[in-house]
Amino acid sequence: MAQLKRTTVGIVGVSGYGGIQLVKLLQEHPLVEIVYLGGKESTGKFYAEVYPHLGHEIDLVIEPIDIDLIVSRCEVVFLGLPNGYTCDLAPKLLSKGCKVFDLSADYRFKNLQVYSYWYNKKRNDIETANSAVYGLPELYRTDIQSTSLIGCPGCYPTASLLALSPLLKQGLILPETIIIDAKSGTSGGGRQAKMNLLLAEAEGSLGTYNVVRHRHTPEIEQICCDLTGHEVKVQFTPYLVPMVRGILSTVYASLRDPGLVRDDLLTIYKAFYRFCPFIRILPKGVYPQTKWACGTNLCYIGIETDSRTDRVIVFSAIDNLIKGQAGQAIQCLNIMMGWEETLGLPQLCFYP
Amino acid sequence: MAQLKRTTVGIVGVSGYGGIQLVKLLQEHPLVEIVYLGGKESTGKFYAEVYPHLGHEIDLVIEPIDIDLIVSRCEVVFLGLPNGYTCDLAPKLLSKGCKVFDLSADYRFKNLQVYSYWYNKKRNDIETANSAVYGLPELYRTDIQSTSLIGCPGCYPTASLLALSPLLKQGLILPETIIIDAKSGTSGGGRQAKMNLLLAEAEGSLGTYNVVRHRHTPEIEQICCDLTGHEVKVQFTPYLVPMVRGILSTVYASLRDPGLVRDDLLTIYKAFYRFCPFIRILPKGVYPQTKWACGTNLCYIGIETDSRTDRVIVFSAIDNLIKGQAGQAIQCLNIMMGWEETLGLPQLCFYP
Amino acid sequence: MAQLKRTTVGIVGVSGYGGIQLVKLLQEHPLVEIVYLGGKESTGKFYAEVYPHLGHEIDLVIEPIDIDLIVSRCEVVFLGLPNGYTCDLAPKLLSKGCKVFDLSADYRFKNLQVYSYWYNKKRNDIETANSAVYGLPELYRTDIQSTSLIGCPGCYPTASLLALSPLLKQGLILPETIIIDAKSGTSGGGRQAKMNLLLAEAEGSLGTYNVVRHRHTPEIEQICCDLTGHEVKVQFTPYLVPMVRGILSTVYASLRDPGLVRDDLLTIYKAFYRFCPFIRILPKGVYPQTKWACGTNLCYIGIETDSRTDRVIVFSAIDNLIKGQAGQAIQCLNIMMGWEETLGLPQLCFYP
Amino acid sequence: MAQLKRTTVGIVGVSGYGGIQLVKLLQEHPLVEIVYLGGKESTGKFYAEVYPHLGHEIDLVIEPIDIDLIVSRCEVVFLGLPNGYTCDLAPKLLSKGCKVFDLSADYRFKNLQVYSYWYNKKRNDIETANSAVYGLPELYRTDIQSTSLIGCPGCYPTASLLALSPLLKQGLILPETIIIDAKSGTSGGGRQAKMNLLLAEAEGSLGTYNVVRHRHTPEIEQICCDLTGHEVKVQFTPYLVPMVRGILSTVYASLRDPGLVRDDLLTIYKAFYRFCPFIRILPKGVYPQTKWACGTNLCYIGIETDSRTDRVIVFSAIDNLIKGQAGQAIQCLNIMMGWEETLGLPQLCFYP
Repeated sequence: MAQLKRTTVGIVGVSGYGGIQLVKLLQEHPLVEIVYLGGKESTGKFYAEVYPHLGHEIDLVIEPIDIDLIVSRCEVVFLGLPNGYTCDLAPKLLSKGCKVFDLSADYRFKNLQVYSYWYNKKRNDIETANSAVYGLPELYRTDIQSTSLIGCPGCYPTASLLALSPLLKQGLILPETIIIDAKSGTSGGGRQAKMNLLLAEAEGSLGTYNVVRHRHTPEIEQICCDLTGHEVKVQFTPYLVPMVRGILSTVYASLRDPGLVRDDLLTIYKAFYRFCPFIRILPKGVYPQTKWACGTNLCYIGIETDSRTDRVIVFSAIDNLIKGQAGQAIQCLNIMMGWEETLGLPQLCFYP
Repeated sequence: MAQLKRTTVGIVGVSGYGGIQLVKLLQEHPLVEIVYLGGKESTGKFYAEVYPHLGHEIDLVIEPIDIDLIVSRCEVVFLGLPNGYTCDLAPKLLSKGCKVFDLSADYRFKNLQVYSYWYNKKRNDIETANSAVYGLPELYRTDIQSTSLIGCPGCYPTASLLALSPLLKQGLILPETIIIDAKSGTSGGGRQAKMNLLLAEAEGSLGTYNVVRHRHTPEIEQICCDLTGHEVKVQFTPYLVPMVRGILSTVYASLRDPGLVRDDLLTIYKAFYRFCPFIRILPKGVYPQTKWACGTNLCYIGIETDSRTDRVIVFSAIDNLIKGQAGQAIQCLNIMMGWEETLGLPQLCFYP
Repeated sequence: MAQLKRTTVGIVGVSGYGGIQLVKLLQEHPLVEIVYLGGKESTGKFYAEVYPHLGHEIDLVIEPIDIDLIVSRCEVVFLGLPNGYTCDLAPKLLSKGCKVFDLSADYRFKNLQVYSYWYNKKRNDIETANSAVYGLPELYRTDIQSTSLIGCPGCYPTASLLALSPLLKQGLILPETIIIDAKSGTSGGGRQAKMNLLLAEAEGSLGTYNVVRHRHTPEIEQICCDLTGHEVKVQFTPYLVPMVRGILSTVYASLRDPGLVRDDLLTIYKAFYRFCPFIRILPKGVYPQTKWACGTNLCYIGIETDSRTDRVIVFSAIDNLIKGQAGQAIQCLNIMMGWEETLGLPQLCFYP
Repeated sequence: MAQLKRTTVGIVGVSGYGGIQLVKLLQEHPLVEIVYLGGKESTGKFYAEVYPHLGHEIDLVIEPIDIDLIVSRCEVVFLGLPNGYTCDLAPKLLSKGCKVFDLSADYRFKNLQVYSYWYNKKRNDIETANSAVYGLPELYRTDIQSTSLIGCPGCYPTASLLALSPLLKQGLILPETIIIDAKSGTSGGGRQAKMNLLLAEAEGSLGTYNVVRHRHTPEIEQICCDLTGHEVKVQFTPYLVPMVRGILSTVYASLRDPGLVRDDLLTIYKAFYRFCPFIRILPKGVYPQTKWACGTNLCYIGIETDSRTDRVIVFSAIDNLIKGQAGQAIQCLNIMMGWEETLGLPQLCFYP
């Protein structure tokens, strides 16, 4: 792993929550050097003016989002911009040799018509979209090694697909019975001053939103389809939980073979994820707490079957901003660069 | 509603969270007078020693749980004891003319074998159990009027059954597809010093417990069976949410007739609950926040259908300690006494 | 207390947190009727569109802030507008016979130069300002009875002055040693989508703001001066605590007579507040929890002396939105109208 | 820093919150190896049974607290036991050549009479107590290098003394005016199932405890005395804040020279702490948020002066379980062993 110089990385969109995770994790990563921070509204400010607690650690000014500037300095760029912006930037960055990790939804979809329908934006960068790899290393590790453009998965899809994939891949469930009930901390709403994300509104309360129409639905379905070879429709319901970080995704499905019990599934899951350093299959009778995953790139998975109803229930917990966003992007970087997959990615939470 | 004297009530088990709700609500109820507080561990203490903020309001000492004492003073008794205690007390209290409202699980089950299986206690008070009415007024108002013993429903069953009943009663769903994903504040765990209920453990975290084996499962199923006339098995999963009060119960089910859409169901629900002063059917596109129900005896219900999956999703929110416990018991008292159903029961939350 | 018709009230600024407290409390008040809701940004909307949980309770549309309209309908107006707006409205409303309760800072100051310095607004409504009474009933009950304009106190000053007044009034402390360390829930920041009030930012964190320059400093000092007859300078430091409601104000001061001990002070405080139905002096060794006051118009006070340092420490807890804002305004209304002071104002919190 | 083998460490009292911090941090420390976990109630259990999320990381069984066993394996021992236990263990461990880091209060006091008075335990290990060093590296780095027994500071004293020391050491304030108002997350109460630490009780509430009699008072005063050469009495008031981790300590004092202003003090503090890698002096007008320190061994300090009152106010924020407990112990270990002071100690928080 010896190398003469650190890889130069830039981060665009550094004032958001995805951005600050990238800054923290990449700052502590042993093989990279942050050489550029880009932003729109905070341009010209020292990063410490946006996040005062970082004053002693990061001495960089936020610069304009300028392709030439970025390309002249960075081998690798992480894009933490709102949906619909990256598809304009990425082709230019790629054409000049940058490796691009996009945290938005722009490069998650192979079928741009699906993207356009759900995200209200026309697209004609079909070729670039086709070259992009969906950055879920537990499913697409090999593809990640040989691309230059990663469409980093959404937070809910990450948790949900890690819970679902072994069942789908091995044909153990009836796909039409899949229900995903997924609960997220409010940082998932981004660093936006929205009324419903105020502590005074969200604290002490629980509620759902975007019922039957959340944009992560088609993203999950696309990967389910890729795993099974045929169309899958999932029921997906998200919630805002009064906590900062963490997603707990609960997946319900009817077993194809009611004889399959929990202990069988634990064995199957362990085998499925045996080369995946960030997946933790919990012992029988133990179910994940989101807190265990917070501050780490881990996904904890707990499994139960119900002999009364012939269903399987899988619970998966991640940190929505790390495994669900910035950490997973860095995991992809490690794989793409041929580094150790776990490099610079925390695996032990602070508890309590 | 004029009456010469207030009805005398006693409360047994006053140091728990159910107990203090009863004390608060009955203290402000215009037609009753609290004349007895009973407890085991706090006997001999002033109530203000247990809850110092009540020093100016309630000047009563906690007395031993003595049948003769209770009967000599109280026309009505609320029992807020752990499961398995009331079935010893209630027959004696009833035989001496007291009206009994039991907040434990002891008188929720008609079939005592089911009770004994799930609660690990043998029972032979079959006659008393048969005379008990399940205290969910929205379903059993008439029966409540003419009994002396109410088995007050559990918190999860209250929320879940209020969401489910119109669908089941009218045969609109396939019962074998029912999934209930129910999230509760930690006060549902009671005023017990358990490690997992500590703020340091529970705050900032979300997790499930008692998966596929929570005791509220058979309670819900019993009422589903009563509504439909045949056995129903539900998938029930509870969670502890980092908040003090409130339950949000999500019910998924497949529609028998896929042509049925949300607006139809809103109409059906409004009709079903048209005489129920505590049920709030939300307009289309609005889903309940638990906070709206906290501090009230209300149940907020939001409904959605998904034409992609032919499912209905119903969300119900209650205050687990009021509509889910003490408030509902008082609602039953009001009905049993022939008083206005809403008497002494708050309908407007403090927001935020 | 019999009266032929309810007093008609209007509320201006109904979408904020002060506004919704007024709506809730006045809606449940037995002697008033809400006949007008006014606002700027939400004009034309049903109130239930702003706060969906109120759909079944309040069937009013938010109307423009029009003096003639208000005067034609309302005997009493509550103004929940930002600082600097009321001083334009109030004189007109008063001249047409309305009683005015201003929740902003505009009519808290006798000395308009102090106001102008701290609030950056020139004023020349000196006569109106002079006719205003500072709406802290525990200190100014008599004046409140005979005015038509109440400048309702700030939340921090309410808690701090109720803790301080007996000490100052009776000359028990050295005024130059007063330090007030006051902690508030984030609803005190108002219903504004500010970044630092987001749950993701404020949850799990504690911090101070406006150190040595918070606008409530001169407000507290003005009343201290009024109580003692000479200028008093207090050290005031506010904090945002990760909770929705509640203020805990800690007052430190050096005792003039070190021989004075806690029990003496408890006696003095009880005597001082003997006619004040909302003040709760706690027994020795008991200190207030903010939660006890939440949802009520109460102020809990706990007192300690330290013989090692000859200081007194007083802790006071209120609900910042009720006793610290809307509830106190209604308490003033009750006094002004000659009604019972406690009418429509809750005195028992929901616990936990 | 090359070394042939890692230093062997043992941790006693591993199920508490101090214990799990030590396990996490030492597990990730590059120069140590955890070879022993000791406990009383959990003896014989795998550590993963106590903290299930650690199943993949720590494969050790909790063993009895046996001196011979410990000494045979460990060069260094961390003791995370309740107060009053270590003073029996430490002399034996030291006599057999172990280096001892005591997280309890037992070795914080030079004057054992003070200890005995506040902790209700007689002591006669005077010699051992005299050899102990108070483990606050920013003040006692040199002494730490040459001892074998560290009495690790309490959490409140750590935060408070780091805020106070430059003022006291340089004689800038009147010591009799010191007031410390210190707010802590509830993990400071330890992993004990106490009623007042339940989420249902503590969430949404703020209150004080142990007013004028908290045991950290004499600990702070002892160090103040050591810094100034004469007795100092401080006013210390602690609070429980509804959050898991973090302490914000506010120190008020009257300036000896009123001409001294904030910018002078910022310069003085920066100079005082110039060799201290974990102290972060914030720029003018910026005050610490506890969240910035959480998950790190940092102490953030913000300073303000008030020309109206001639006082200085210093705010310090730490993670009570890291800089306030386990992290600081490891910082002392690093110093004692001659390693880099920051080794294995995080300096960047996860935000938000």
